[in-house]
Amino acid sequence: MIDAVRWVRTPENQHEVHVLDQRLLPLRTEFMVCRTASDMATAIRDMVVRGAPAIGIAAAFGVALGSQSWNPGAGFSYQQHMEETTRLLGATRPTAVNLFWALERMRALWATPVIGDPSGLTGSLFLEAQSIKDEDIRMNRKMGDHGQALLPDSATVLTHCNAGALATGGFGTALGVIRAAVSAGKTIRVFADETRPYLQGARLTAYELVEDGIPTTLITDGMGASLMAKKKIDAVIVGADRVTANGDVANKIGTYALAVLARAHGIPFYVAAPFSTIDFSLQSGSQIPIEERSPREITHFGPDVRIAPEGVSVYNPAFDVTPGEFITAIITEKGVFRPDEIRQLAPKSN
Amino acid sequence: MIDAVRWVRTPENQHEVHVLDQRLLPLRTEFMVCRTASDMATAIRDMVVRGAPAIGIAAAFGVALGSQSWNPGAGFSYQQHMEETTRLLGATRPTAVNLFWALERMRALWATPVIGDPSGLTGSLFLEAQSIKDEDIRMNRKMGDHGQALLPDSATVLTHCNAGALATGGFGTALGVIRAAVSAGKTIRVFADETRPYLQGARLTAYELVEDGIPTTLITDGMGASLMAKKKIDAVIVGADRVTANGDVANKIGTYALAVLARAHGIPFYVAAPFSTIDFSLQSGSQIPIEERSPREITHFGPDVRIAPEGVSVYNPAFDVTPGEFITAIITEKGVFRPDEIRQLAPKSN
Repeated sequence: MIDAVRWVRTPENQHEVHVLDQRLLPLRTEFMVCRTASDMATAIRDMVVRGAPAIGIAAAFGVALGSQSWNPGAGFSYQQHMEETTRLLGATRPTAVNLFWALERMRALWATPVIGDPSGLTGSLFLEAQSIKDEDIRMNRKMGDHGQALLPDSATVLTHCNAGALATGGFGTALGVIRAAVSAGKTIRVFADETRPYLQGARLTAYELVEDGIPTTLITDGMGASLMAKKKIDAVIVGADRVTANGDVANKIGTYALAVLARAHGIPFYVAAPFSTIDFSLQSGSQIPIEERSPREITHFGPDVRIAPEGVSVYNPAFDVTPGEFITAIITEKGVFRPDEIRQLAPKSN
Repeated sequence: MIDAVRWVRTPENQHEVHVLDQRLLPLRTEFMVCRTASDMATAIRDMVVRGAPAIGIAAAFGVALGSQSWNPGAGFSYQQHMEETTRLLGATRPTAVNLFWALERMRALWATPVIGDPSGLTGSLFLEAQSIKDEDIRMNRKMGDHGQALLPDSATVLTHCNAGALATGGFGTALGVIRAAVSAGKTIRVFADETRPYLQGARLTAYELVEDGIPTTLITDGMGASLMAKKKIDAVIVGADRVTANGDVANKIGTYALAVLARAHGIPFYVAAPFSTIDFSLQSGSQIPIEERSPREITHFGPDVRIAPEGVSVYNPAFDVTPGEFITAIITEKGVFRPDEIRQLAPKSN
């Protein structure tokens, strides 16, 4: 199984986190070695690692790396240092709420007053980050079990972006549902949107599914609609970067178009996401901060090859918001819910 | 004004056709020199020139080049040679009907029995091809006049692919409407879909509009829907490769998605195309042959750089069909029509 974020202990008993550089896939398999929280912030911001659950896991390890590099002689208390570490990691990408959820979960550990040397917490923080990762994989498998039951015995599924093992602790959300359906003996074919501008579909989803031997056909983002018109698509399944209390979903740009098109063609549209993706503090998707990324992702191929002419303006939002009304069901580890049922799942405040 | 297909006479009194190599735009401006019908067939098939009206013009010049290279000593009659020339050019791309329309128009000249040396027709054939080109520009301007009246004084227009000067004799169909609206003093902003896989929007439409100083913002194909939801789009205007008697429209892949999305958001969806794009012999869009192109257009960037993993399947239709029900109006040089009015425009057979 693909393992995008790996905790490694060196012979010198230092902690490192090896992050699979997803920018180079599928052509090269290289890992970025993160030794500090700053390394990890770079890995998240520059999309060495991406995908909402994987970003949460990476940030959790980033907090642990921050603890490891606390230097009492630098003039900041452990709490001050960890607060700054958390701020640094939280400033990387604004949309995926799993990032903030993971930072808060880690805060619960480091913010507890301790007797003696607080840097002794470092080991506990790494174990906690690893727990977040392990739990994510278990949740993916539960999501897969819940979600695969929604698919017929033979189904062609359209997916967008990468909501697979690379986007999570392993296994995947949307691709987890597909994997679980295949494991359950169902005949599943996948159409994968290439997902411009970053081509997560072409580079990552196609890579994962080809590795698994699941029949996969790559298309451009504009082709799904005509496949729907030809009745070639039985279901659309995507992941999510944030779900709000009313069941609205922020996900990779292009998701909203697919949801409207699925509705127009009478095709079910499913979102698979762990419970930590739900932001009960926001009432609707219009409140979700949407990251805008560099124009170069659209005007250039890779770092250097210009596609578009000088002087053209570019609009490059990384995500869009799909209103809950276009979503058939949201698949979580706790079960399958209609968007209008999300609000009542909110944890009771004490 | 951009001039994609140029008839040139050499000092040796040979005819050549210089075709702007649109594969290299916007980075390089180079012309492919076509001296034979075979050269021109290559230019069309390999997309040195593209866009339905421009393909028709190029094919017409291809017929004239074929006439020029007839060699009586090769054992084929002039008529046989021209029939083979026509077959060669007709086999390049199947979807744009202007190609076949132009070949038939040229046939009317070369198929007429002549007294004496038939190669004397060559000059007439070049003049006829130039007439097709000149007429196309005049029709584009009429289309622009008709179409711009549909736009409010201040409008933001979404377009897909390139239906501009590069796709026509000059001026453009969809971009002709935009240019005419600007000339009429209207305030027009354009969002241009990059249009995967061939990036005609990023490379060609953005280039034309930046040159013209028309404010243009480049987006990926998946972004238009969220702009529609935010009420940022007042109209969608595209070109067409073939229109059938019932008002269905084949156009660049991704067009159908935009039409369904425009309908869902209450936004008018216009198609601008010369009358020669209407194929009255076909009753509906399901009868239009849809070209499927090489998987490499999706799996690779340019000729050499692989994006997607080995082993993935690819589906790469170059066009899709938009049913007339999703089209607000079809803008032609003869006026603006509802799709259900197209059938009654058919020329009366004698």
